[in-house]
Amino acid sequence: MIELSKETIQNLPKIPRLNLINSCTGYKSANLIVTKTIEGISNVAIFSSITHLGSDPALLGFILRPTTVPRNTYKNIKDLGYFTVNHVTESMIVDAHHSSASYDETVSEFDKTNLEEEYHDGITIPFVKGSPVQILCKYLNEYEIKENGTIHIIASIEQLFIKENLIQAENWLRLDLENVVSINGLDAYCVPKLVDRFEYARPNIPTKSIL
Amino acid sequence: MIELSKETIQNLPKIPRLNLINSCTGYKSANLIVTKTIEGISNVAIFSSITHLGSDPALLGFILRPTTVPRNTYKNIKDLGYFTVNHVTESMIVDAHHSSASYDETVSEFDKTNLEEEYHDGITIPFVKGSPVQILCKYLNEYEIKENGTIHIIASIEQLFIKENLIQAENWLRLDLENVVSINGLDAYCVPKLVDRFEYARPNIPTKSIL
Repeated sequence: MIELSKETIQNLPKIPRLNLINSCTGYKSANLIVTKTIEGISNVAIFSSITHLGSDPALLGFILRPTTVPRNTYKNIKDLGYFTVNHVTESMIVDAHHSSASYDETVSEFDKTNLEEEYHDGITIPFVKGSPVQILCKYLNEYEIKENGTIHIIASIEQLFIKENLIQAENWLRLDLENVVSINGLDAYCVPKLVDRFEYARPNIPTKSIL
Repeated sequence: MIELSKETIQNLPKIPRLNLINSCTGYKSANLIVTKTIEGISNVAIFSSITHLGSDPALLGFILRPTTVPRNTYKNIKDLGYFTVNHVTESMIVDAHHSSASYDETVSEFDKTNLEEEYHDGITIPFVKGSPVQILCKYLNEYEIKENGTIHIIASIEQLFIKENLIQAENWLRLDLENVVSINGLDAYCVPKLVDRFEYARPNIPTKSIL
């Protein structure tokens, strides 16, 4: 094993430090967050920090750096109160990654990529066409993480749109059936395949597969 | 697409709601958090919410439900101030999942599974033997998410131990070389494989592969 101390990590040049720390926590979710400006221009940005927070009520959270790239996303969420979360599939990865380029708020990433808007009845914020899991979210709160100035956004899940073939027994969504990707580090896209699924673990009872 | 409203989701029985909401945010990281009680008993628990928070300083965060299963982890972290984070590989998934069984604090999950302790010089908390990325973390702070009573733990990365073959140019860790897994929902384990990696995205310049 290679050992790296805190001091060694702190003294790394920026890119090797970013790569190392972004990849050392494991695989991350890959989601496109879509927002709209007050003027009606759609914004698309890729996020790898969206995390399940709880199921009752259904909540998710993600981390924003208000002083760096996805600040349009933050302003739009604060202005309109809603955003959509859209899973990235293998065929979308080039365009999903390109959504991280810092276009200003007058430019829609839908016009700069092959990603297409999809509207659902009664919802003014678009989703990403072809995304097999689409979530309408409502901004609830934010917590400033004072250790590094990032913001943890808390949102409720208001509506879900799911490609039917993903839905398995008891509502488990089997994501590999639509080649949903995960992110390794800053810029590497991976396709996971299911290996096994286990029943609820109980003390002193061997864990059994439920596949 | 199947459409599910907030009301439909709220009215689902517990298990279908847990499955749905736990799998709708995408793939999650799979990490074993190891802590020790004041009495010296090791505790191992699987977490799927560990997220990169920033690289300078190197920080990570994760979500705890203080009133449910992994409460031993929380108490131990508060008591001793340190814990270790260990990536789960394909060969560990049965035992990693079993670590979610609710053994009391007098029982070490290392004694109830095939997982083995690994100690590194000068560190009293063990790591998980065979885990290709091992992180020593120091508790820094916590934020109560008042929307559902969960706790967002913030920790600094104090030391890293990495299997050498994972380390690529400029310190990117290529996790699929050691079959690191990701989690889909509550109980499904997947193995991702690298598809592509892209250069930093810039406006109006086509995104290029760097593999």
